Amino acid sequence: MKTLPLVLTAAFTFGAMNLSAAEPMHKVLLSAKDNLRVDTWEQSGHAGGAKGSAWSVRKISLHGGKQEGVDLVIIDNGKLKITVVPTRGMGILSVTSGDVRLGWDSPVKEVVNPSYINLQSRGGLGWLDGFNEWLVRCGLESNGHPGTDKFINNVGEEATMELTLHGKIANIPASEVEVSIDPAPPYRIRLRGTVHERMFYGPKLELQTEISTEPGSTSFRIEDVITNHGAQEQEFELLYHTNYGHPLLEEGSTFLAAASRVTPFNAHAARDIAQYTTYTGPTPGFGEEVYCLHPLADRDGRTTIGLENKARDRAVSLTFPVKDLPYVTMWKNTTSMAEGYVTGLEPGTNFPANRRLERAHGRVPKLAAGESHHAAIDFQIYTNAEETQRLRERISALQGDVKPVLDEKPEAND
Amino acid sequence: MKTLPLVLTAAFTFGAMNLSAAEPMHKVLLSAKDNLRVDTWEQSGHAGGAKGSAWSVRKISLHGGKQEGVDLVIIDNGKLKITVVPTRGMGILSVTSGDVRLGWDSPVKEVVNPSYINLQSRGGLGWLDGFNEWLVRCGLESNGHPGTDKFINNVGEEATMELTLHGKIANIPASEVEVSIDPAPPYRIRLRGTVHERMFYGPKLELQTEISTEPGSTSFRIEDVITNHGAQEQEFELLYHTNYGHPLLEEGSTFLAAASRVTPFNAHAARDIAQYTTYTGPTPGFGEEVYCLHPLADRDGRTTIGLENKARDRAVSLTFPVKDLPYVTMWKNTTSMAEGYVTGLEPGTNFPANRRLERAHGRVPKLAAGESHHAAIDFQIYTNAEETQRLRERISALQGDVKPVLDEKPEAND
Amino acid sequence: MKTLPLVLTAAFTFGAMNLSAAEPMHKVLLSAKDNLRVDTWEQSGHAGGAKGSAWSVRKISLHGGKQEGVDLVIIDNGKLKITVVPTRGMGILSVTSGDVRLGWDSPVKEVVNPSYINLQSRGGLGWLDGFNEWLVRCGLESNGHPGTDKFINNVGEEATMELTLHGKIANIPASEVEVSIDPAPPYRIRLRGTVHERMFYGPKLELQTEISTEPGSTSFRIEDVITNHGAQEQEFELLYHTNYGHPLLEEGSTFLAAASRVTPFNAHAARDIAQYTTYTGPTPGFGEEVYCLHPLADRDGRTTIGLENKARDRAVSLTFPVKDLPYVTMWKNTTSMAEGYVTGLEPGTNFPANRRLERAHGRVPKLAAGESHHAAIDFQIYTNAEETQRLRERISALQGDVKPVLDEKPEAND
Repeated sequence: MKTLPLVLTAAFTFGAMNLSAAEPMHKVLLSAKDNLRVDTWEQSGHAGGAKGSAWSVRKISLHGGKQEGVDLVIIDNGKLKITVVPTRGMGILSVTSGDVRLGWDSPVKEVVNPSYINLQSRGGLGWLDGFNEWLVRCGLESNGHPGTDKFINNVGEEATMELTLHGKIANIPASEVEVSIDPAPPYRIRLRGTVHERMFYGPKLELQTEISTEPGSTSFRIEDVITNHGAQEQEFELLYHTNYGHPLLEEGSTFLAAASRVTPFNAHAARDIAQYTTYTGPTPGFGEEVYCLHPLADRDGRTTIGLENKARDRAVSLTFPVKDLPYVTMWKNTTSMAEGYVTGLEPGTNFPANRRLERAHGRVPKLAAGESHHAAIDFQIYTNAEETQRLRERISALQGDVKPVLDEKPEAND
Repeated sequence: MKTLPLVLTAAFTFGAMNLSAAEPMHKVLLSAKDNLRVDTWEQSGHAGGAKGSAWSVRKISLHGGKQEGVDLVIIDNGKLKITVVPTRGMGILSVTSGDVRLGWDSPVKEVVNPSYINLQSRGGLGWLDGFNEWLVRCGLESNGHPGTDKFINNVGEEATMELTLHGKIANIPASEVEVSIDPAPPYRIRLRGTVHERMFYGPKLELQTEISTEPGSTSFRIEDVITNHGAQEQEFELLYHTNYGHPLLEEGSTFLAAASRVTPFNAHAARDIAQYTTYTGPTPGFGEEVYCLHPLADRDGRTTIGLENKARDRAVSLTFPVKDLPYVTMWKNTTSMAEGYVTGLEPGTNFPANRRLERAHGRVPKLAAGESHHAAIDFQIYTNAEETQRLRERISALQGDVKPVLDEKPEAND
Repeated sequence: MKTLPLVLTAAFTFGAMNLSAAEPMHKVLLSAKDNLRVDTWEQSGHAGGAKGSAWSVRKISLHGGKQEGVDLVIIDNGKLKITVVPTRGMGILSVTSGDVRLGWDSPVKEVVNPSYINLQSRGGLGWLDGFNEWLVRCGLESNGHPGTDKFINNVGEEATMELTLHGKIANIPASEVEVSIDPAPPYRIRLRGTVHERMFYGPKLELQTEISTEPGSTSFRIEDVITNHGAQEQEFELLYHTNYGHPLLEEGSTFLAAASRVTPFNAHAARDIAQYTTYTGPTPGFGEEVYCLHPLADRDGRTTIGLENKARDRAVSLTFPVKDLPYVTMWKNTTSMAEGYVTGLEPGTNFPANRRLERAHGRVPKLAAGESHHAAIDFQIYTNAEETQRLRERISALQGDVKPVLDEKPEAND
């Protein structure tokens, strides 16, 4: 019996090109405007000619279970492999470089199509049915814990609604996705996506994201612009929930940050605040501990946080301006592997309490009509002891002589 | 082993035909019964031979964002272009004729697949996540405002449930869709669709709709039959939410209707009832105003309502028997363009209060087992001053000497 | 006019093979792991050579209405046709053998894609929007009536949630599906599927099912393994909701079971308990009656329940170990045909009250980390009077001299 190859839905292009100024690469992969979806596609080349760094970009579609119809884009710059999920709000499933993986082993194994997600299920915790990305944006109208908050309803009156955990943006499929490579050195590879969180009588927020990297580099950048397309002032919340599991997270790994103040999120976390930067191995029955940090910045207004392994020869860092993302949440969930051994490093416009509480503490920013909020994070992967040490030293220098206040109690919420 | 190529979901036909009695056109585009979905298709011709009016019918599928997998059918009769959305309950996205557009600019830009809609979100306002059609049916088990009402549950007992805004029908994909052209003059083009709102231990309501027009005409007709396929008496509500934005709606546009009585929907609308038929331009911060009309009919039992532009040389009218659709809701939402500058002309079996209130006012009809409710609306587009004047005169004649009662207060709801 | 055939989603294989040890059949139809979905496929042959029993297996995809994108697998062993729905948790739509049909005529006609289901709608009864299978599993985290129960939330605290009718498993698409035929006599045909009900901070339950039959046989077997992949003890509930309509169910049909005790589910059912094993014809307005049985087993620990027609020449039986499925629910819903004339024979780990009540009565089992629960049911179809009589006699023998306690009142729930 012979089996024939299955032509799936698309023009499947095995392309190989040596990129030069004469051959810029630009490909639209998804477009609601142009009514276009590329099912499967691939292109590869060498930046700047045959001797340049090899790169490839692949677009695939997922099948089976709850991942039916999900789009993935995989960027390989020769050193880093970045897997982006347009169908889940341009979240990033994982980034790998050699033996370093940004990502974790969630009990959720499939990349879940939002059409199978009900955010309201389980008392507003339906978001957890799809949670397995390395980087998932929480927002945009709200993020944080579920629970009652006020809003303006369809007749212009203040009403109450039940917010759902971490908002909608991670479960909205991207409307526009395109990839390009700059025609001139350093031939930066750029994946751009647009996700709309909009409705009638409600928010009209747009996320424009660019995920970019240079061929041969171990760093990459996420640059987002959130725009209020409504005619009225609009609250928003944005939190980058970046999550790390084994092997970068292990017994003896260290969380690195410079902070003026660290507040436990609840009484449970308060108990362990003295050791909040160090991790245990997988601990069955471990209950999550969350710490809220006020990061310290350098003279350019930028801070760096990171995670290093026990041997101090592997690490990741996140660098960003604190004016755009003034709060850092650190989430420790060092439970058993089966339940999801993971820690979260989460820069945001707010801490992840219910929006009602964040508003009371002055941590819910607003955008005027037409106004945008910009946020960019530079990520760096470290694969040896020297680089890792320099990271540690940089963050120590940020901390300087400042003694961080470690609060004994969670923030008061009346 | 033999391998045959399978044409699964699409025959992609570039067809051009001159329609005659010898070549009737009939095409099934979607059928749950026959397990068939045409992905993309087009046919065109001239009605009654080469000198007849040009027509075309196109079936396309949408891609990108939340519109992934949505079916559209576009009927062009040579004068009118009607865009129907089978995936959204056979709603109509827009109708255009020259520079007249029936439709509006909703902040919701994509034609949203119901698989991404949660009607229960935002306290029962999830319907607003997909609201951008020119014509959207509200119903069938209920329509109107969200809120608590009673129903009979799975054990035959009266229970309460939270109704969601405007019901389910606009977010149910059509089960059967076919298009045909009559073989004899005037070669009427007919698009028929069936949408089922049915469940176990609940309503078994069927919508059969026919959207039809003659080649070269500026009028078209929607003819619906709602049938109760259950064995028990069944309440239903049906409201045609037809929506108009710029340019037909502008400062100085006028709503045209003959009514015995007009009641404001709430205190806010009551304030402005003296000017309820005239419109302002886009007004940031404008809160919606809703008016409930009891239309006057001619000797054949038909009424006509309409909307004309400021220059009185462009207009649309809706003509229908008042026994089928005895109530007209007029929705004024002349807010800024970004929020959705729009007015609704909405014939219905009821006003859009929660079904609990409509029932109390005797405006929730019932269908016996096997019984059907028929509703048809004739739409006419006017593209010059003379035609528009005749429309105005016709509606004036309907009003005759009757002075409409303009209520100062909303209806009492205890 | 040119017509181009468009090969859209599949390679369709008409295969014919005479199965022998040299040609074992094995085909993966769906795999999230291997990112694979076969749209359409068919294979047929004769078991053990040209003189053996004819068999075929078909995989098709459904289109139109709410069944867009649903996968079906149809196994024909020469005597039985079994139609399985991978997209709906490996439920079974129907089994037919000659003029005997395991199945019923639900008002829900389409095989509904879970992407169109909202389990929380209608006060937690959204499951009823898709209910039309012959066999639908209820579970796995919970089944039974909707209503409030406790759970452990994302911060490790006991919280309350609204359970939805019959749980999630029937609305989760299978992740892995494969079909095979044993290479040696009796050439058993096996369809295996895996469905995951898993989330972060919640259950990590896996259903592995095998539906199998021998060529030429009128019996088949469902063998399920439920595994807790979490690191903590996990409650679960599993109920096989098998449903039978006309013609097997008719006035004078009899429910066959050996029981030590029968308890009415509510006061309504209590009234008719003396006649609980006999059925009326379609009775408009009939309210459902539910009876809870404690089945009697043979010396091997197995019980048999069944349904026979009025003429006692057609029947079905279910045989299973009572240690795996210790409770049997009998659901009588002999309403009009239009509303769904049906009876349910439902072996389970529990009765279908809300989990809160089942827990209080000690009927919610738990699985330790990594532990599995096994459940298998053998089904037999009977097509003549002698076989049917033997079934009746077998169940009589199980009952023996034991007088079943028929409770006059429902179970007390305080």
